[in-house]
Amino acid sequence: SCSSLGNESSVLVINTGGTIGMTLHDSGYAPKANALVESLRKLPILHDEQYARQTCLYESYGLKNTLVLPQSKLNKRIIYTILEYSPLLDSSNMTTDDWGQIGKDIEKNYENFDGFVILHGTDTMAYTASALSFMCENLGKPIVLTGSQVPIYELRNDGRDNLLGALLIAGQFIIPEVCLYFYNKLYRGNRVTKVHAESFNAFTSPNLAPLATIEVDFKINWDTVWRANNTAMFQARNELNRNVGLLRLFPGITASTVRAFLQPPMQGVVLETYGSGNAPDNRPDLLEELSKATNAGVIIVNCTQCLKGTVSPTYATGKVLMDAGLIAGSDMTPEAALSKLSYVLAKKELTLDAQKKLMAQNLRGEMSADLEGAKLCLSNH
Amino acid sequence: SCSSLGNESSVLVINTGGTIGMTLHDSGYAPKANALVESLRKLPILHDEQYARQTCLYESYGLKNTLVLPQSKLNKRIIYTILEYSPLLDSSNMTTDDWGQIGKDIEKNYENFDGFVILHGTDTMAYTASALSFMCENLGKPIVLTGSQVPIYELRNDGRDNLLGALLIAGQFIIPEVCLYFYNKLYRGNRVTKVHAESFNAFTSPNLAPLATIEVDFKINWDTVWRANNTAMFQARNELNRNVGLLRLFPGITASTVRAFLQPPMQGVVLETYGSGNAPDNRPDLLEELSKATNAGVIIVNCTQCLKGTVSPTYATGKVLMDAGLIAGSDMTPEAALSKLSYVLAKKELTLDAQKKLMAQNLRGEMSADLEGAKLCLSNH
Amino acid sequence: SCSSLGNESSVLVINTGGTIGMTLHDSGYAPKANALVESLRKLPILHDEQYARQTCLYESYGLKNTLVLPQSKLNKRIIYTILEYSPLLDSSNMTTDDWGQIGKDIEKNYENFDGFVILHGTDTMAYTASALSFMCENLGKPIVLTGSQVPIYELRNDGRDNLLGALLIAGQFIIPEVCLYFYNKLYRGNRVTKVHAESFNAFTSPNLAPLATIEVDFKINWDTVWRANNTAMFQARNELNRNVGLLRLFPGITASTVRAFLQPPMQGVVLETYGSGNAPDNRPDLLEELSKATNAGVIIVNCTQCLKGTVSPTYATGKVLMDAGLIAGSDMTPEAALSKLSYVLAKKELTLDAQKKLMAQNLRGEMSADLEGAKLCLSNH
Amino acid sequence: SCSSLGNESSVLVINTGGTIGMTLHDSGYAPKANALVESLRKLPILHDEQYARQTCLYESYGLKNTLVLPQSKLNKRIIYTILEYSPLLDSSNMTTDDWGQIGKDIEKNYENFDGFVILHGTDTMAYTASALSFMCENLGKPIVLTGSQVPIYELRNDGRDNLLGALLIAGQFIIPEVCLYFYNKLYRGNRVTKVHAESFNAFTSPNLAPLATIEVDFKINWDTVWRANNTAMFQARNELNRNVGLLRLFPGITASTVRAFLQPPMQGVVLETYGSGNAPDNRPDLLEELSKATNAGVIIVNCTQCLKGTVSPTYATGKVLMDAGLIAGSDMTPEAALSKLSYVLAKKELTLDAQKKLMAQNLRGEMSADLEGAKLCLSNH
Repeated sequence: SCSSLGNESSVLVINTGGTIGMTLHDSGYAPKANALVESLRKLPILHDEQYARQTCLYESYGLKNTLVLPQSKLNKRIIYTILEYSPLLDSSNMTTDDWGQIGKDIEKNYENFDGFVILHGTDTMAYTASALSFMCENLGKPIVLTGSQVPIYELRNDGRDNLLGALLIAGQFIIPEVCLYFYNKLYRGNRVTKVHAESFNAFTSPNLAPLATIEVDFKINWDTVWRANNTAMFQARNELNRNVGLLRLFPGITASTVRAFLQPPMQGVVLETYGSGNAPDNRPDLLEELSKATNAGVIIVNCTQCLKGTVSPTYATGKVLMDAGLIAGSDMTPEAALSKLSYVLAKKELTLDAQKKLMAQNLRGEMSADLEGAKLCLSNH
Repeated sequence: SCSSLGNESSVLVINTGGTIGMTLHDSGYAPKANALVESLRKLPILHDEQYARQTCLYESYGLKNTLVLPQSKLNKRIIYTILEYSPLLDSSNMTTDDWGQIGKDIEKNYENFDGFVILHGTDTMAYTASALSFMCENLGKPIVLTGSQVPIYELRNDGRDNLLGALLIAGQFIIPEVCLYFYNKLYRGNRVTKVHAESFNAFTSPNLAPLATIEVDFKINWDTVWRANNTAMFQARNELNRNVGLLRLFPGITASTVRAFLQPPMQGVVLETYGSGNAPDNRPDLLEELSKATNAGVIIVNCTQCLKGTVSPTYATGKVLMDAGLIAGSDMTPEAALSKLSYVLAKKELTLDAQKKLMAQNLRGEMSADLEGAKLCLSNH
Repeated sequence: SCSSLGNESSVLVINTGGTIGMTLHDSGYAPKANALVESLRKLPILHDEQYARQTCLYESYGLKNTLVLPQSKLNKRIIYTILEYSPLLDSSNMTTDDWGQIGKDIEKNYENFDGFVILHGTDTMAYTASALSFMCENLGKPIVLTGSQVPIYELRNDGRDNLLGALLIAGQFIIPEVCLYFYNKLYRGNRVTKVHAESFNAFTSPNLAPLATIEVDFKINWDTVWRANNTAMFQARNELNRNVGLLRLFPGITASTVRAFLQPPMQGVVLETYGSGNAPDNRPDLLEELSKATNAGVIIVNCTQCLKGTVSPTYATGKVLMDAGLIAGSDMTPEAALSKLSYVLAKKELTLDAQKKLMAQNLRGEMSADLEGAKLCLSNH
Repeated sequence: SCSSLGNESSVLVINTGGTIGMTLHDSGYAPKANALVESLRKLPILHDEQYARQTCLYESYGLKNTLVLPQSKLNKRIIYTILEYSPLLDSSNMTTDDWGQIGKDIEKNYENFDGFVILHGTDTMAYTASALSFMCENLGKPIVLTGSQVPIYELRNDGRDNLLGALLIAGQFIIPEVCLYFYNKLYRGNRVTKVHAESFNAFTSPNLAPLATIEVDFKINWDTVWRANNTAMFQARNELNRNVGLLRLFPGITASTVRAFLQPPMQGVVLETYGSGNAPDNRPDLLEELSKATNAGVIIVNCTQCLKGTVSPTYATGKVLMDAGLIAGSDMTPEAALSKLSYVLAKKELTLDAQKKLMAQNLRGEMSADLEGAKLCLSNH
């Protein structure tokens, strides 16, 4: 006598760890294994036990970590299953191996779910979101990263609303992107950066408007949503090259510092330059180190250290860096550029030139394709 | 028969270079020596030739690079003299030596002027403003850095207004700080960072409200203005230690990269950590490199890579870094922390411990003194 | 065997109605009597049934509409009692009588509670908050208005967090003001206006920074908190004069419209003028109507129709209005000015001149006291 | 021996008055006739005398009030002629007659110029911009209103940059709209409202993103630019109905106030309601007055008093107003709705029903056409 209305969708929640599931201990917050499901089960906002029983949810899903949201405004029932990592990871501790693991878990479960939510600490969430956006090839379903600044076990917290919003997006909308949802905004994952250490409004997407704002209504900017332009089968590329790094320019940086940073096994570097991609042009020592590295096969991408801005290949002042073999990074965030390097360098089937070409191309909406600036519509008299 | 109303003040403008004075050449913008004065002389907004003649300005100042603003709303005449550097410097090319030169020039002219304006490229202006704030000890007069995103020779530009505003502040108000003036806002110099590569509104002061907003009226937040609490004589400390650097954490950073970065002659490093000062605590290899360096006498300051936020010495999650000997950087910008290291490490008269203590102290308003967070006023029942 | 930790505070929640407690019916949202308490009782975030039983809460309070929050971070237990109005009011339907009723209920319960929360529709919440700020004389406890854009019964809503935040403020902090709490910000009640019809971030306080921002931590601007400077006993003045109105200037407004609006029984009018308090000075017909009214004893307050700005008594362009007998409204919102008129005109013990004087004075922080603009600290040479 | 490069465009500047051209007198700022041209002629930023002589500008244009900008970055020469109104008008004094005059002057000169700039006081500029947007039928050239918060004769002012930017837009881009340019932003004229009385950034366009941002580059949102979808000849409809008004709801508004406001000769009223178009539904007296008026042929448009928001015809809570015969004003500003009423009511060739239909339609981009809210792209399983 089980009955379901049929209008259900299913979401896999991968709980990697992070503040959202932490509890207070003597020495501060720490993750607690196997606690999140039990906690959510008691929150009527995030689980409807009555529906679960009526529909024999646990029997059909056979899993003690499956929950179901109350009915949404669009009359959907979102059934979600939590896959918890062991151990739970502080996001400071995330590595490229962990990115690979997430990719594998999505691939393994890709056909069984309508969407994916990834719970993650905020500190490196922008890095992971960027990496996954590249790793997930031919993505046709939503993958939404979220987390919180305050644990879900605290009286006041942003975790409940972030999780709820992420589930509603992943279970109801065809936004086939790796996204990041935080404080009522949905961002493209490879466009975000964490800008506030202590605010609920922790993330921003400096060079692209949010994909959606979700307050009284779901306002989705469908024109911005990225769609793969082929119909190949989804796969997650889980190999990532770890020999990559971020180097920020500063006045007085020495050639020896640059040389040390670029030495083998380094294969890809994001150089955070000034303004629109500028570097000293009166420092032959520095430029020589950069040239030597690019000649030796290191891919160096020129990104700005400004929050907002674009490094264009045609802009004159960055010319010395172009001459030194650097690639203009357009308006990629450092997080996106770094993880794109990890992804591209792992494609061993490609030549170095082909890899460089990929770095300069827009693969997943991570850069503004049109680098020529404002189109003009001049009057003609 | 020369006559002056007497209500004059004098400002020294040090033109170090930068976009504000560039002209268009075949290959882009480039600085042009000795051109700025002549150009300003033709702009009635920035020079009142009639007044100059009436008051025999050139005779009394004996300098062809002296100009005078039209009368201000506060009935002041601001007479300004331009000291142009040769060669003019692109701000990407600025070094600690150039900071020292600016310090020397201010010191040499300190008694002869009521205020100082420094024209500077925007790319490293936040670094220079931070450095000067530390170098200028017992400052009693305003030093205002400014520049522009578009050269003053262009039809539309932000240089005229930025220069005019900076002169009006330096010549009329007792704000005894190193400040940065841009797009109608006056910021504390060691609090700013460049956030927009392509907007007139290029700077922000993420953790401190502007000192003043200057639109229809001059609205100055006098409560925020920093004042040296002693009456010692002004001096510019021009020695700066160049063995300093900025290192940004990222997922997967290797111990060898960190080791290479921290190797001698490095003496001071700003580590840009995650969130509120977090780093991997499951990476003994990394932490050992940091420990080795601090044990060897390198001062490492823990600053967040978030635009806004505070690294507190009492926050639990940064504990592994405290244990490794790092100093909590509070809400200093990376620019401020880096140049403070340059300044403090050059004080050879101090022990290492005394230097570390200075790094943790608020010297020029560069950090929020009260690190204990919001004061509470609990009700009592 | 009942036990309480003693660290409790008590809050009276006056539920006047509004979206927060509405449910969906055939023809849209409508209020539902006696439903809120039962609903909150089932939300573990807003009620801790276990604590209620352990401490025999219902026995000691003897009321079925008492609830208790889970323990707060400051280790408080906030016990709150809901007083629900019958019928529940849509905020569009609020009148000065309803303001009076709220005042009476606060006065009656003033000694028995540590703080007060008023649930209210958002549409006229800024008017009610303004009115209560004047009516509550010698206030020594917090009164916090809140509500929501989406009903608390919806899956995603802003009502839970708004109610929770309001309770935590009212039960824990000595902010002896009538405040409005919305979307993690606490505002002075007589400074707010509703600016967004469809966003969670619906209110703004255009001319005063928020009293507090409540995200990861409670950040309270204690310097801004208003405190009555006497120790007289609290009372709520519940008489309000209804013969008041808001009239917005627009190009081409006719003298007959103005005359009609100002005719008896009108006693107080907020004239929403242009910019810094401007009105046509070439319209003797208009000005004559205004003069006739002020001569006949109508108090007319000059407020700007701009969201931000100040109407100063010394500003020249508003001179024709001063000559016509209007009072400069400084930076009061129209909502504050209107309800202040209602309050002041009801003080029948005062002469018209004394009433006018009160209108020009800062009574509850509703206007910036210092109208002379930025203080200058001119250099002196 | 006159020579011109040929790449010229011509702009008519209609100087109606306002702060931009005021000078300081004993009793404050006042307009000064025939002074602006002479003043601009001396500003090298706004006039290139050398070019004027080389090209015999004054001979060919035969007018002493013609000026020419220095060459623009797009290599254009913008020749502009100033038509000054006499007397110059304070914008507070603007009436529908003045709107008509501006319309006539544009029509008369339409064929002779490539674009139009209208100098106007800021106080009612949003009203005038709205009105002109409706009056100008089949517009094919840019009309840009601008002005300033500080007179162009002051040392620091926003007038120079506002005028310069407006000229560069009107002379170089095919944006066939009535626009408003202020502080580096170009807005659709019927979408703006003045929100700051004392800031350079005085205007906002609450429900539509700016048409362009003009800082380092001209960034024009071409997708947003409105284009008439027919090729009929331009005409300015200069008749406007003056029997229109703005009435703002407030708690306790009396039926007699509403009746007085709606009495003949009133023909069109913008009712500023609460939130998403709400009004008291428990006030039969009020609703009866509104019904009586609409039955008597008064057109009443329902707009929100919130800065941002939409009044939709399908939203339930505004139902009582729909029943009373009001028209939903969507997201029109009060300024746009009022001037649209003036325009539509003057079309005496139309029946009342046809006029009402026009009021509910999007004529010039003044309202968002699609009132059904966010389009959904639901997943389908």
